Amino acid sequence: VTDAPVATTQRVIKMASHPSGALEDDDFELVDAPVPEPADGEALVRTLYLSLDPAIRVWMNGIDTYVPGIHVGDVMRAGGLGEVVQSRNAAYTEGDLVFGMMQWSEYCIARAGPDGMMTLPRQEPITAFLSVLGVTGLTAYFGMFDVAQPKEGETVVVSGAAGAVGSVAGQIGKIIGCRVVGIAGGPEKCAWITDELGFDAWIDYKSENVAARLRETCPDGIDVFFDNVGGEILDAVLGQINLHARIALCGAISQYDTAELSPGPRNFINLIPQRGRVEGFILLDYRDRFVDAILQLGQWVQEGRIRYAEDIVDGLENAPAAFRRLFTGENTGKLIVKVAE
Amino acid sequence: VTDAPVATTQRVIKMASHPSGALEDDDFELVDAPVPEPADGEALVRTLYLSLDPAIRVWMNGIDTYVPGIHVGDVMRAGGLGEVVQSRNAAYTEGDLVFGMMQWSEYCIARAGPDGMMTLPRQEPITAFLSVLGVTGLTAYFGMFDVAQPKEGETVVVSGAAGAVGSVAGQIGKIIGCRVVGIAGGPEKCAWITDELGFDAWIDYKSENVAARLRETCPDGIDVFFDNVGGEILDAVLGQINLHARIALCGAISQYDTAELSPGPRNFINLIPQRGRVEGFILLDYRDRFVDAILQLGQWVQEGRIRYAEDIVDGLENAPAAFRRLFTGENTGKLIVKVAE
Repeated sequence: VTDAPVATTQRVIKMASHPSGALEDDDFELVDAPVPEPADGEALVRTLYLSLDPAIRVWMNGIDTYVPGIHVGDVMRAGGLGEVVQSRNAAYTEGDLVFGMMQWSEYCIARAGPDGMMTLPRQEPITAFLSVLGVTGLTAYFGMFDVAQPKEGETVVVSGAAGAVGSVAGQIGKIIGCRVVGIAGGPEKCAWITDELGFDAWIDYKSENVAARLRETCPDGIDVFFDNVGGEILDAVLGQINLHARIALCGAISQYDTAELSPGPRNFINLIPQRGRVEGFILLDYRDRFVDAILQLGQWVQEGRIRYAEDIVDGLENAPAAFRRLFTGENTGKLIVKVAE
Repeated sequence: VTDAPVATTQRVIKMASHPSGALEDDDFELVDAPVPEPADGEALVRTLYLSLDPAIRVWMNGIDTYVPGIHVGDVMRAGGLGEVVQSRNAAYTEGDLVFGMMQWSEYCIARAGPDGMMTLPRQEPITAFLSVLGVTGLTAYFGMFDVAQPKEGETVVVSGAAGAVGSVAGQIGKIIGCRVVGIAGGPEKCAWITDELGFDAWIDYKSENVAARLRETCPDGIDVFFDNVGGEILDAVLGQINLHARIALCGAISQYDTAELSPGPRNFINLIPQRGRVEGFILLDYRDRFVDAILQLGQWVQEGRIRYAEDIVDGLENAPAAFRRLFTGENTGKLIVKVAE
């Protein structure tokens, strides 16, 4: 048992209201709150970095899915990295770097057992554990290898291609030996995925007709679609799938920050003659294989075969504004909030 | 080589125009045409029964999919049963009962080799080879066992449940040991699937709120959906799927006979948190296993575990009007046109 002195008051960000449509400032509330006391078997963790991911917007609707929904008055949640500052559990030692589900707060509690946090090596940059070696890199890894299953020589399309997941998914496609076409918004992102990441072609959904550009950039049709966006982009791809195409539904960011779901893809029906498969997946289902995947991704990063970008915002108080940028397409790479050194 | 005398003129039904939206009488044209002469390696077949299936409506759009599209002026096509009347191929003997892709005509040609026709035993009623032991029964068989893969104790929903495919799919679900709920139109069809076929519950989509009735009839959620209908019914089901649900897209009859595809399902996004899988399939992909499946289905029919209905319309000239009834939900069971004894 360690028992170093810590602050008694902290800043936390609560959800002030369920967003009705696009996020607004007053959906969040920054307040002071007591630092929690770890019970027996628990540890107190100081938050270092929080991972802001699109899925959090879905949790804010308050509906329980694979994780509980966030309700009005709850402290916002996010995956994060922290440092153990007090421990009442032999599994956690003061100074440990830990990863797990945290809160938008300066401190949080690490529980005992399977709901607890994972201890990580202090390997720099530690933010990689929230990006390429963390939730987003792992999501790309399992979504490609287990769900989409592209084969060498096939054509892979990735939406949200300059995002933290899409950028890794596309590079995995290149490692497998596929033609990889990325859909992203704006010339900077499009240049980045082709010039820096090695994608074969880009489509700028903000300025181009996606269906027409898919015909140009995928002359042999589309075998695999790794979809982070949903909506009209998914529809355009469904119209050009090859026989036995596989569509991994990783996310549908176009549908998260709206008051009402858009109609689904009209070309859904094309799955029948093309014997297409659409499959949704959730990273948590693959937790037994996280370590192997992290080692493989780490090796590819070291070899320069996978590059990644991080968009690190300083200060817990800036989390709401940063989070909103995810849905306006303004950020490139993994969005992370730095809460403490 | 046999060479019995046959008529020199026959009646055929051509497609007079691509339907724009719902089928109309003048999309078809009944005309006289010469009886074709079989070339070396071919046989002349007299049409006995034609199978009218929803997919034919898709072919009428003139777009090549897994089969070539039908173009203006082409004789309409359908699977059918016929009798060999002249043969220039040792594989076909005069008097043989054959099954294959035929035309809406009194005679057609059986080709040589893999594009040819299958010879069948003269087992009564021979129309079963167009229904429960034919395309529709086989579609239900492979759609359930290979695509949807329901397990004992799971809840299976079938749309188009009183149709030729849906009625068999649901009964296969009962054989596997599932709770089976059928969606059909009107009280007669709903009574038939529960009272005669043994479905556990029915939903009358013409008079009831499908989403509300799914909640009532599927209290444990939906594990498998065998979909023949698409559109709003698919959307309602997607809103109530369980974890790892499987949706076999067999058909989308609600979308075939319209000028424009409806928007796809809004609840498509629910596939992500539920890790759902949607897969389209086409019967032809399973042709290597047709014989085994026919034997299994035949056994279940003999044992009374699978019942089926046929809706047999007399006269080639009545094929267009009969075909239109498929899309208005007026028929129950397999729609067949009797062309000759």
